[in-house]
Amino acid sequence: MKPQGPAQVELPPETLTGNQKLQVDGDARAVLRQPAVRAYSIALRPTSLENPRSVWEQVSDHLTQAEGLHHLTLDPELVRERPARAETGSIDVAIRAGRIMDARSEGRLRPLGLAVDLGTTKVAGFLMDLESGELLAADGIMNPQIAYGEDLMSRLAHALGEEKARARLSDAAGEGIDRLLGTLVHAAGREREDVQEVVIAGNTAMHHLLLRLPIEQLARAPYVPAVRDALEVPAASLGIRAASRASAYLLPSVAGFVGGDHVAMILGAAIHEAGDTVLGLDIGTNTEIVLARGGRLISCSCASGPAFEGAHIYQGMRAVGGAISRVRLGSGGETVELETIGGQPPRGLCGSGVLDAVAEFVRQGVVNERGMLRPEHPRVRRGDGGAAFLLVPAEQTDVGHDLLVTQKDVSEIQLAKGAVASGVEMLLRAAGLAAEEIDRIVVAGAFGTHLGLESAVRIGLLPDLPLERFRQVGNAAGAGARMALLSVKERATAEQLARRVEYLELTAKPEFSGVFARAMRFPNK
Amino acid sequence: MKPQGPAQVELPPETLTGNQKLQVDGDARAVLRQPAVRAYSIALRPTSLENPRSVWEQVSDHLTQAEGLHHLTLDPELVRERPARAETGSIDVAIRAGRIMDARSEGRLRPLGLAVDLGTTKVAGFLMDLESGELLAADGIMNPQIAYGEDLMSRLAHALGEEKARARLSDAAGEGIDRLLGTLVHAAGREREDVQEVVIAGNTAMHHLLLRLPIEQLARAPYVPAVRDALEVPAASLGIRAASRASAYLLPSVAGFVGGDHVAMILGAAIHEAGDTVLGLDIGTNTEIVLARGGRLISCSCASGPAFEGAHIYQGMRAVGGAISRVRLGSGGETVELETIGGQPPRGLCGSGVLDAVAEFVRQGVVNERGMLRPEHPRVRRGDGGAAFLLVPAEQTDVGHDLLVTQKDVSEIQLAKGAVASGVEMLLRAAGLAAEEIDRIVVAGAFGTHLGLESAVRIGLLPDLPLERFRQVGNAAGAGARMALLSVKERATAEQLARRVEYLELTAKPEFSGVFARAMRFPNK
Repeated sequence: MKPQGPAQVELPPETLTGNQKLQVDGDARAVLRQPAVRAYSIALRPTSLENPRSVWEQVSDHLTQAEGLHHLTLDPELVRERPARAETGSIDVAIRAGRIMDARSEGRLRPLGLAVDLGTTKVAGFLMDLESGELLAADGIMNPQIAYGEDLMSRLAHALGEEKARARLSDAAGEGIDRLLGTLVHAAGREREDVQEVVIAGNTAMHHLLLRLPIEQLARAPYVPAVRDALEVPAASLGIRAASRASAYLLPSVAGFVGGDHVAMILGAAIHEAGDTVLGLDIGTNTEIVLARGGRLISCSCASGPAFEGAHIYQGMRAVGGAISRVRLGSGGETVELETIGGQPPRGLCGSGVLDAVAEFVRQGVVNERGMLRPEHPRVRRGDGGAAFLLVPAEQTDVGHDLLVTQKDVSEIQLAKGAVASGVEMLLRAAGLAAEEIDRIVVAGAFGTHLGLESAVRIGLLPDLPLERFRQVGNAAGAGARMALLSVKERATAEQLARRVEYLELTAKPEFSGVFARAMRFPNK
Repeated sequence: MKPQGPAQVELPPETLTGNQKLQVDGDARAVLRQPAVRAYSIALRPTSLENPRSVWEQVSDHLTQAEGLHHLTLDPELVRERPARAETGSIDVAIRAGRIMDARSEGRLRPLGLAVDLGTTKVAGFLMDLESGELLAADGIMNPQIAYGEDLMSRLAHALGEEKARARLSDAAGEGIDRLLGTLVHAAGREREDVQEVVIAGNTAMHHLLLRLPIEQLARAPYVPAVRDALEVPAASLGIRAASRASAYLLPSVAGFVGGDHVAMILGAAIHEAGDTVLGLDIGTNTEIVLARGGRLISCSCASGPAFEGAHIYQGMRAVGGAISRVRLGSGGETVELETIGGQPPRGLCGSGVLDAVAEFVRQGVVNERGMLRPEHPRVRRGDGGAAFLLVPAEQTDVGHDLLVTQKDVSEIQLAKGAVASGVEMLLRAAGLAAEEIDRIVVAGAFGTHLGLESAVRIGLLPDLPLERFRQVGNAAGAGARMALLSVKERATAEQLARRVEYLELTAKPEFSGVFARAMRFPNK
């Protein structure tokens, strides 16, 4: 089982992740398979006076002479696990960065790897065969840290409190990954011990909380990471039960709010290789945006809030069965057409539904340019909590009450879109470009994949460009993490990228507040 | 404190080791200082919005840009130890094999290293400044494993018994090194935390027992090491309390009874660089011999027994005060001249004293060619235990009884010298050389340093060559360990040497028993 030369492996399409099918990456990237961990099968001759070589000396001889590997390191604890005297047969060894990290009896070692997209809300895991590049299983879970704060800043605040809180958050993230690993190896009919490497892409806060790095300078000004470079730690040190000597590789960060997940997104969507002018966005509670033009990469981060994830929305919900995901208004906003996830009776609105609704308000003139619901509109009513638009009367729902889009909901969306649009505007200014000069817009992430592009353009969340310039690519950060798992070359590229990306700190620019204020407005109908 | 380019450092002479002054290496070797651990001092600018770089990012930037170091690894636990936000000042970091292994506030980090010669009987330690190459302290202790068996084979037998016994032997050796380290840093006025690296040269059995490697194949035929290659482990894993991330590097072995101490001896005495024909011997309970000729190195191991260390000798003792270390007989063996260690009244005989006595028996005809004491000699008497030679009458001693050299003592020396001489003869045969073709004989080790060369030649322990061809070089294995500590290049040389040395298994040669039988005889007077 001498590894073949690097082979082209198609990055597999995404599969079911939790309850939700992630969109398939439009054009799956080809990755040169160069995993950090490689397995070798070595034929042994019995140790004797005529062949006075132990198992380990024969392994060393083979690797040096037949494979050209030198300066290998070997852990005594691995040597202790089996008799040193060789019998007839063969032994499989796994090697990573010059270290013999595992050994099994013949044919028993087939290294797997786990790629993790460690999101603030969701943790997605991908179990891969490191030799074939095959995706064996994928799944997603809620980030167990949610118990200590829904969003990133509240978790950082919790962690600032005391050492124990930092340990709790770290343990929660590690246990989440560990649980996901257990689910995935079970689904693939494999063992935890087969997993020789874990690659983790997370935003800087998730990264720091997982590794229990100092966060005082991250949670408060100047909002800088303790460590930006890629890190490697024993997987076991994170509470991840895999092969005994498995490593966890954490992708590098760009800045306090532009983390390894952004680097992975650039990698996964090949934005760094673009010859044309590309805008890439991963829209979430925090939205990271990159502008690529002529080899230059400029990134920024916008506090877009959780509205796009259905949170902080009056009747918002996650994108599960019964969530309104598409809205279309007719006759000046008097008639409503809906789509729900799973075609079930409506129970609430997920992010794309709210976005659609607000976009339709704009299109049909239900709101004005400043985002105020027109009180005279027949579906707008004034309740205790302010004005609201009647989307679905109670009798057509599954929940027994009216489904409304409130004035506050509109304002949340308006704030969020203002944050993103002003980020885009600032990047364009930094590059000296007009929006029309953008050749392609890559929209990544769960929400970005499900949003209605027309709606996003309608409200000004995304630039007003022809729809054929847009691509919704699914979980590009997850794809980037899988690439880094399959190839040390891609990992090196990620490390270069993290240093190459120019970080634009929006709040440090005097013109930002004006840009943001303008970006808050809705376009004229 | 940017490290200067590699500098020539004179290997310092040996200093007091325990009770005994080791001989100074005749021509101290020059070592190109290239320690594995290097310290860098890095000026910091305060972290701010204008300089949004943590301590660690500034460290990374400096090391990458100013020092050209790439792909450095950093442990989260090191990052956790201090605030990530930089203040004005500087930080010192220690780097080893691309890993940032320690960090201290300005001017506090000056890496030390410990070189250890882990002998079956004695453990010698050398504390060195890795930057200057200076020897700060040296000392020696008895190997605490002695509690579990005096010689190597009895310790292996003990360790074969049960897992617990292996752990006890491993712990004993580790604790010995740890204790020595404590003594040395105290003597040098430094701290354990300053010791960033440990280099250990030991015979294969000591090496395996320390690391708790499998020994079934080492203690019994085919007597092979589980691992021959150099190994690196965390010093802490051996119970050695040094800097938290300090490594222990174990020199590679050649064979089951030709270990890292032999490789270190070759290195320390520069035998591998010899242009002429050199014979190198480290005489002890086990004697390793190397023959170097025209780039070829052939080594063997002889079971010479503990007689040269004063053990298994009727009135033998270690080389401490009152031990007879020199003997000269006059008038056909009727008069005796002595020297004792420290000039104290005689209490027993150390190895060199017994050797001298037997050599004088040969010179004066007190023994015949087969090593039998002549019963008619006036000083030879027959007691319950057989014949014995009266060396010192009771009234001239400090112990109140006669000091004797027994027939059994002579036989022990005869066996030992036969083992060594037959090893030399077998090496010469393997190289197709006659003894006269040896240009230099390097005699290393504690006994080798103190033995009377004339006596050794007289009884045939060493080849009968002009005395100017001999050099007694002291603890060459210790010198080799110090070289490996100070220079990664010397470490690489040691690794090449371990593979390059041709091991000659004496017992596998049919002619060996004949050679051994002849080598047992004493030369004609």
